[in-house]
Amino acid sequence: MSVPTAAADQTICAPLPVLGADVTIPLVTGGDVTYAALDYAASSPALQRVWDDVAAYAPYYGSVHRGAGYLSQLSTDLFETSRATVAEFLGCRAEDQVVFTRSTTDSLNLLAAALPAGCQVFVFETEHHASLLPWRDARVTYLDAPRTPDQAVATLEKALAARDPHGPALVCVTGASNVTGELWPVRELAAAAHAHGARIVLDAAQLAPHHPVDIAELDVDWVAFSGHKLYAPFGSGVLAGRADWLVDAEPYLAGGGASRKVARRADGGVDVEWHTTAARHEAGSPNVIGVYSIAAACKALTEAGFDRLVDREQQLVTRVREGLAGVPEVKVLSLFGDDAPRVGVLSFVVEGWNSSHFAAALSAEYGIGVRDGLFCAHPLVRTLLGSEPQDPGECGAPDAAPGERSLNAIRVSFGAGTPDEHIERFLGAVRELVGEGARWTYRTEEGRCVPDRGAAQV
Amino acid sequence: MSVPTAAADQTICAPLPVLGADVTIPLVTGGDVTYAALDYAASSPALQRVWDDVAAYAPYYGSVHRGAGYLSQLSTDLFETSRATVAEFLGCRAEDQVVFTRSTTDSLNLLAAALPAGCQVFVFETEHHASLLPWRDARVTYLDAPRTPDQAVATLEKALAARDPHGPALVCVTGASNVTGELWPVRELAAAAHAHGARIVLDAAQLAPHHPVDIAELDVDWVAFSGHKLYAPFGSGVLAGRADWLVDAEPYLAGGGASRKVARRADGGVDVEWHTTAARHEAGSPNVIGVYSIAAACKALTEAGFDRLVDREQQLVTRVREGLAGVPEVKVLSLFGDDAPRVGVLSFVVEGWNSSHFAAALSAEYGIGVRDGLFCAHPLVRTLLGSEPQDPGECGAPDAAPGERSLNAIRVSFGAGTPDEHIERFLGAVRELVGEGARWTYRTEEGRCVPDRGAAQV
Repeated sequence: MSVPTAAADQTICAPLPVLGADVTIPLVTGGDVTYAALDYAASSPALQRVWDDVAAYAPYYGSVHRGAGYLSQLSTDLFETSRATVAEFLGCRAEDQVVFTRSTTDSLNLLAAALPAGCQVFVFETEHHASLLPWRDARVTYLDAPRTPDQAVATLEKALAARDPHGPALVCVTGASNVTGELWPVRELAAAAHAHGARIVLDAAQLAPHHPVDIAELDVDWVAFSGHKLYAPFGSGVLAGRADWLVDAEPYLAGGGASRKVARRADGGVDVEWHTTAARHEAGSPNVIGVYSIAAACKALTEAGFDRLVDREQQLVTRVREGLAGVPEVKVLSLFGDDAPRVGVLSFVVEGWNSSHFAAALSAEYGIGVRDGLFCAHPLVRTLLGSEPQDPGECGAPDAAPGERSLNAIRVSFGAGTPDEHIERFLGAVRELVGEGARWTYRTEEGRCVPDRGAAQV
Repeated sequence: MSVPTAAADQTICAPLPVLGADVTIPLVTGGDVTYAALDYAASSPALQRVWDDVAAYAPYYGSVHRGAGYLSQLSTDLFETSRATVAEFLGCRAEDQVVFTRSTTDSLNLLAAALPAGCQVFVFETEHHASLLPWRDARVTYLDAPRTPDQAVATLEKALAARDPHGPALVCVTGASNVTGELWPVRELAAAAHAHGARIVLDAAQLAPHHPVDIAELDVDWVAFSGHKLYAPFGSGVLAGRADWLVDAEPYLAGGGASRKVARRADGGVDVEWHTTAARHEAGSPNVIGVYSIAAACKALTEAGFDRLVDREQQLVTRVREGLAGVPEVKVLSLFGDDAPRVGVLSFVVEGWNSSHFAAALSAEYGIGVRDGLFCAHPLVRTLLGSEPQDPGECGAPDAAPGERSLNAIRVSFGAGTPDEHIERFLGAVRELVGEGARWTYRTEEGRCVPDRGAAQV
């Protein structure tokens, strides 16, 4: 997988309109400022287009499946059309199933619950906890963090070569790291998995919003992603891919919608006949609005020209890299090296600063929303920092003396709705905070680093 | 549990404004009509107030928990405040936990996954599949359908008395049937459960939208309900109640949000420390909009005066009962007798009619959305009909000769947003269809009964 090189300027599109672009928030230092949402990797704002589609549909909302009314039938059609839209967005093969879940975490837990007996799972320690932890009933091999994409492939090859070749096996890998934003060699890892008789699921939570994903072209068996990172924060996610393990598995949830026939037996028990379509794993009334919002986002990204959005985002990535490179106290975290291709997700530490303090000052004094911490990827952050991750110390005090290791990090992330101004404001704020320090004092309150509004300010 | 008697007319409130009230749809017989949504038991429309609250919040949406930005902190506060609002709405005890899920089905599957080892489960065969089926890893006793509330209590008492008294046990019971709308004697069943050392979970999916639920007053251990039946169709549900089984259980989903600390072990494995709060079972980014919409609905119902809404709904129930009683061909389904208290959910069959045909004609010729089928409660409908439920026969042909049993049923359901006109239109349509027959011909297409638009009409 590679990021297209930036195209000539005239083909770069403007940021897509998103909700909240005009929201102003108060600064602790006085005055208001428009909010700069630079935490897309946690949750992106809704595309205006997604919101408009949801708002237009909402009066027509009706229960799906067996309703006889006009709006039920309209909603059922919309629900199943959304499934087809997502399948097309992902380049699904004809035999693939698209199952709607609540999130990537849910999608991977569903797949974990559908593993055949005796399945071995291979996962890099560098994964988000959503990819690292769901395999509770399987024999899991955790692979050490590679330092190049080639080393990732070699590490997987070696582990698969040593596995019991007769049983089923699954590799789970991220498409783009939620910490470093770096792209993983998905196609090569898929080839390695298949060469050894294993299957592979792609955690595309951080990839799908930033880069087209083609399940057939990558030759992965499943893809998982979340609506709320794909500009559609309405509580739905997707697991798309091969049907066989899913059809053979116990239904993920037991209930209506998944059950075709239920009858008492003569012995007092209950017989259940389950569906064999995607409905098998979608028990309960589906989140129609959530599902429709994902389809709306897929359409909006495609129609805007996803490649042009990628080009523009890559310009922002370059701008952030260059800007941060000009501040010697800032260290950008990377597994694969400073020049490795990545999406609009970058984590860094600032020498002499507690990361929570730095993030709080970006918010309170500049109106910039980033994230600090360990990003639900503790082993990876531990590897990147070379320190034992832990809760941050008291806010305002550096968590590491100069030359020592930081305890956690700051992440800045952006995407299709990010205007240039947010990036410039962020870089200016980093330079100013590093050069001149925070203008306010901060304290820890209920685990959050917040401005100390009672303190006299210099 | 009892439904308050209808108050004097002047205290009856108007229907609450809902989305879709003005939506017009085409009739097969020509012209347009406003849609009469009478399928609330499947999914209710969103309250206008809920939509307005969601729309006002949406630009301020941000990721919850560790985000440092203003909107993340605002969203986190809103998320946790919503938890408190739901706890208050349900009358939760101080030590109860409110866990956000995706639906009632999900809530009950979560509880099923949290049962202590060796737990026995007792459930009436009359439950919705969401309550009947999740207990896959437990020893389940299915109780025969009672024909009175007293018989329900006696049946449960007898079964519990025969159980192994030393192990844990759980009773799962609906508050209001999703087929008949009839109220179950929840307080008495809870007392019986506790007298025998068992716990009880209330499936309030069909109760909470129609009747105040007080977990402490009913003395149930858990309550489950869905947003999409409570005028908040944004993909969230609730499991509220005792924390101990939940804290002791494996996290429902494994992933970020549920995990406090994750670290590689020296032997290559991974150690995980899980949260012990509700977050333990809420892995993945929460559906903030879904959760907020439920809280908005709770507030809207409370502020409108829930008792007054109940009074008005009971007037509509009476009107439907009286209206249907005037049509001898209509048989309303009931476990507990025609006069048993019930919420605004009634199922019926029409002599000489295939139920799917009848429901399709209500939709196509009158713009009325009801539901036909078995309502995800196959054993109950079987008991009520005295026939083996099955997919309906070819549409347009009666599925039962006069005097024979119908194969499935029609359900009409309504609530806080239902205007009198919808009820009157429905009753008029029933009289007209029974008296004069459908004006159009229908045929089965992909399992749906639909108007045969190609046929010449008389």
